[in-house]
Amino acid sequence: MAVDNMLAGLAPHLPDELFTTLMESAELRIERIVSYGHASPPGLWYDQVRHEWVMVLKGAARLRLEGEAQPVEMGPGDFLNIPAHKKHRVEWTTPDEPTVWLAVHYGG
Amino acid sequence: MAVDNMLAGLAPHLPDELFTTLMESAELRIERIVSYGHASPPGLWYDQVRHEWVMVLKGAARLRLEGEAQPVEMGPGDFLNIPAHKKHRVEWTTPDEPTVWLAVHYGG
Repeated sequence: MAVDNMLAGLAPHLPDELFTTLMESAELRIERIVSYGHASPPGLWYDQVRHEWVMVLKGAARLRLEGEAQPVEMGPGDFLNIPAHKKHRVEWTTPDEPTVWLAVHYGG
Repeated sequence: MAVDNMLAGLAPHLPDELFTTLMESAELRIERIVSYGHASPPGLWYDQVRHEWVMVLKGAARLRLEGEAQPVEMGPGDFLNIPAHKKHRVEWTTPDEPTVWLAVHYGG
């Protein structure tokens, strides 16, 4: 069976965040997101119809969740479950290396 | 919101593999597995009713899938989708450090 790697072939620069669907079924979609100093555009909040379980594999990021005083700092191995319609945005990702996220979208 | 870490608090030794459910919903179950030189008992094959998307976060492992001539070598970032009822076993995990797996069980 074919093995793929989440961390292989990362581009040295990325004009935009890179979203890749790794697996999709009726129940869920597993996605890799690569950020490289990117943040959500000013004023943009993600408001998703599905739940999202998200983990940082590499790099560093700061996530803002609506209604919460403090942003969430995330590094390798950190994970979080974001319920459907919980508005959130990426405030910051490190400019020093790619930040690789695994996102599992489900239910909702 | 609470952030947890997949790689934190790994025990220096493990008598048995450690299975921890990180998130469970109607659609899926996300599990962390920590192996430390463990392998599936001789002759044991996993035959699961659900599909399993599995990734190695840290360490090294060798997976055997029924009917395939070659085992699958896995290291950090490697992932694989194992369909329901595709029999498989862990032939080897490195004795040098904990091997941390993320498994997403779904459908089936």
